[in-house]
Amino acid sequence: MERKKEILALNAFAPAPGADLVSAGLGEDLAHRVERRRRSFGATSVLFYDRPLHVVAARGATLTTADGARYLDLYNNVPSVGHGHPKVVAAVRAQVGQLNIHSRYLIDVVDDYAERLLAHFPAPLANVAFTCTGSESNDLALRLARLASGGRGVVVSESAYHGNTAAVTEVSPSSYRKGGPPSFVRTVPPPHPAHYGADVAGGFARAVAAAINALKAHGHGFAALLVDTIFSSDGVHADPPGFLAPAAAAARAAGGLFIADEVQPGFGRTGTNMWGFARHGVVPDIVTLGKPMGNGIALGAVVTRPDLLAPFADAFGYFNTFGGSPVACAAGLAVLEALAEDGLMENARTVGARIAARLADLRPACPAIGEVRGAGLYLGIDIVARADGRPDPEGASGLINALRTRGILIGAAGPLGHTLKVRPPLCLTADEADSFIDALGAILRG
Amino acid sequence: MERKKEILALNAFAPAPGADLVSAGLGEDLAHRVERRRRSFGATSVLFYDRPLHVVAARGATLTTADGARYLDLYNNVPSVGHGHPKVVAAVRAQVGQLNIHSRYLIDVVDDYAERLLAHFPAPLANVAFTCTGSESNDLALRLARLASGGRGVVVSESAYHGNTAAVTEVSPSSYRKGGPPSFVRTVPPPHPAHYGADVAGGFARAVAAAINALKAHGHGFAALLVDTIFSSDGVHADPPGFLAPAAAAARAAGGLFIADEVQPGFGRTGTNMWGFARHGVVPDIVTLGKPMGNGIALGAVVTRPDLLAPFADAFGYFNTFGGSPVACAAGLAVLEALAEDGLMENARTVGARIAARLADLRPACPAIGEVRGAGLYLGIDIVARADGRPDPEGASGLINALRTRGILIGAAGPLGHTLKVRPPLCLTADEADSFIDALGAILRG
Repeated sequence: MERKKEILALNAFAPAPGADLVSAGLGEDLAHRVERRRRSFGATSVLFYDRPLHVVAARGATLTTADGARYLDLYNNVPSVGHGHPKVVAAVRAQVGQLNIHSRYLIDVVDDYAERLLAHFPAPLANVAFTCTGSESNDLALRLARLASGGRGVVVSESAYHGNTAAVTEVSPSSYRKGGPPSFVRTVPPPHPAHYGADVAGGFARAVAAAINALKAHGHGFAALLVDTIFSSDGVHADPPGFLAPAAAAARAAGGLFIADEVQPGFGRTGTNMWGFARHGVVPDIVTLGKPMGNGIALGAVVTRPDLLAPFADAFGYFNTFGGSPVACAAGLAVLEALAEDGLMENARTVGARIAARLADLRPACPAIGEVRGAGLYLGIDIVARADGRPDPEGASGLINALRTRGILIGAAGPLGHTLKVRPPLCLTADEADSFIDALGAILRG
Repeated sequence: MERKKEILALNAFAPAPGADLVSAGLGEDLAHRVERRRRSFGATSVLFYDRPLHVVAARGATLTTADGARYLDLYNNVPSVGHGHPKVVAAVRAQVGQLNIHSRYLIDVVDDYAERLLAHFPAPLANVAFTCTGSESNDLALRLARLASGGRGVVVSESAYHGNTAAVTEVSPSSYRKGGPPSFVRTVPPPHPAHYGADVAGGFARAVAAAINALKAHGHGFAALLVDTIFSSDGVHADPPGFLAPAAAAARAAGGLFIADEVQPGFGRTGTNMWGFARHGVVPDIVTLGKPMGNGIALGAVVTRPDLLAPFADAFGYFNTFGGSPVACAAGLAVLEALAEDGLMENARTVGARIAARLADLRPACPAIGEVRGAGLYLGIDIVARADGRPDPEGASGLINALRTRGILIGAAGPLGHTLKVRPPLCLTADEADSFIDALGAILRG
């Protein structure tokens, strides 16, 4: 399990304990700011990169730091329609001066947004419960699934991350730095021929069925299969389209629900569909939304069937004070409009395809580039050892920091941390994509 | 347990199943809007009042509806420095156009706000972990307490409400419409002479100690005493100041932590202290913050001791994507400044005292007014039967709807729902307070 602490450090600023930050090369100003952060945030403080960034502004796919340097952002999926998108900024500015309160009153922007959002979902997904975060969405989804099924058991992928509440951490194996999830959580390997051979869909469904049987054999009952519809923290696994359908069928056949976590792939990122589940020809029982929904304003949601909400309302009800507040809904509405008006799903498709094609061109000269996976503007690039093609987490870490010095921000994913994660704002231009590939090639060719 | 469903209905719009909303008197426009809401939100839809409000704007302590009517707001504590406070509005407008991203970079407004917030806490509460909601704050607090203590058991008040995640619902007895909390949660009656006689502090501490012993006797171990520092959902119990200190000592003597939920009383509402715990001369191990922190922008926090965060960081770490985002921190900073510049804590003290004094004057002529409890601008007014002084939830419900027709918004609290809850924005003026008392008197004198 020590591996996981190291993975964190691949992306994180993690000087040796007791190190003098100034003499370690940060300079006085940056060292002072890092010390301030650590004093306030304490042990849970995490900053990115060997030299943390002091960010002062952002626009489109560009971050600007205090020294005036500009960075191309291939990391941040939250500002999904672009940092500081004028439409979102204008909507928030207007609403915050008008009204911002809970949803136990009738408020036009709340009801307009709820309808506009639900119009993007197929039947029978007709109800929405607003939350503030993807974590809250997945927490509520687990409660709905457990009440509906009578079971507690959940099947997730080996390196899943679904959020940070107590209940959601239990179904997030990647959050455990020591030990692992409780016995009512079972894991399956991510969809990949390395685990399942040529028939990924069949193999994955059989693994899910076996995990469900193991849960039942241990007396836990089965509540839900919960997965990202592009497996994110497992290293960006998207293919083959359709592979989730047999697994969802297996979950339902066993009396459980299929929960699609769209926090990462949702809102057009895959380039061909608004939601990742649509690539698989399956309609989930519960869909959870978060990060990109409000372009940075805290907004999440559970979208589900009315018959799943009704017994939950009888037993508990659900109310979230800030969930679906007018400012959040105004931001959400602007995001939907920006996605359509700016053609961002189409842009994700074409620019994502361009990156994949250029990586394929680059690969013969750069044997460190291994497999490339994903869909639209959500790609994973395995970094491997030149000698034997084995995963190279240290190489990935070196690349992340080398790209940062060339003004390009990127992160890593996967259980070993050797997969570069390309997950930019959806407004990334072809020129910006090219500048990333050019920089990657220059570094790899040394 | 059916009682609780009825309590919900005391405040809520709850027509008979299948009722025709138009002919039930809502009119076509309102009926249409209610139907829209119910179609989108489904069974978890809850609207306030027999005639739901269609709100279009808010400023200070006033809400405006679509028909141009203005309502005095005695209910909403989230816009704590006032609806649409110019300072908060300006701060959000500036920041949302500049930068709004997660906290793994150094960002001035995030680090400034963290320091400014922590400056309001006594040693050893030196670290902050930002969240988006009070629910997330209490969820994290439970995780910290359980890891530190090795126990799972929690002691809360009989009608406590601490939030809506799976873990926090377990410690929120008032959330259960059927059944009750799991066996590792034990409840104690709220601090009141009716339960504890004259020595409320001693009796409450003995009840907490007995609950801890019961937890241990059942093999659960003890993690924490978790209470509002003004007991809110139990019916607004604040006195005597200091009563929490012996209970916190009992919790610590038993190897557990004392978690102060400041979501309701925090940020000056009590009129004499920034935090409710300060009225009790006790420093908690963990403080949880939410609702009023960002005046409507989703923002919460856990403030705690560094030695409690460190082992948690080793085991899990904590990161919250939207937690402490620049827009949220800009709002939070503006709230702290508005509280000081507008003298809102002092206003809470004087206007709260004025309401209490005028209620005392009104009481002889209005026997429906029972006990009045609370501190600052957080008051509970028991509504009782004229004949025998027994709790009168139906009377409270009638008053809430009668006040609404006179342009005054208020809610209810307590296990029976017979306590009017006065919890306005802290900018409530003396004139506004008087208009509430005048209306209440006019209704009660009929």
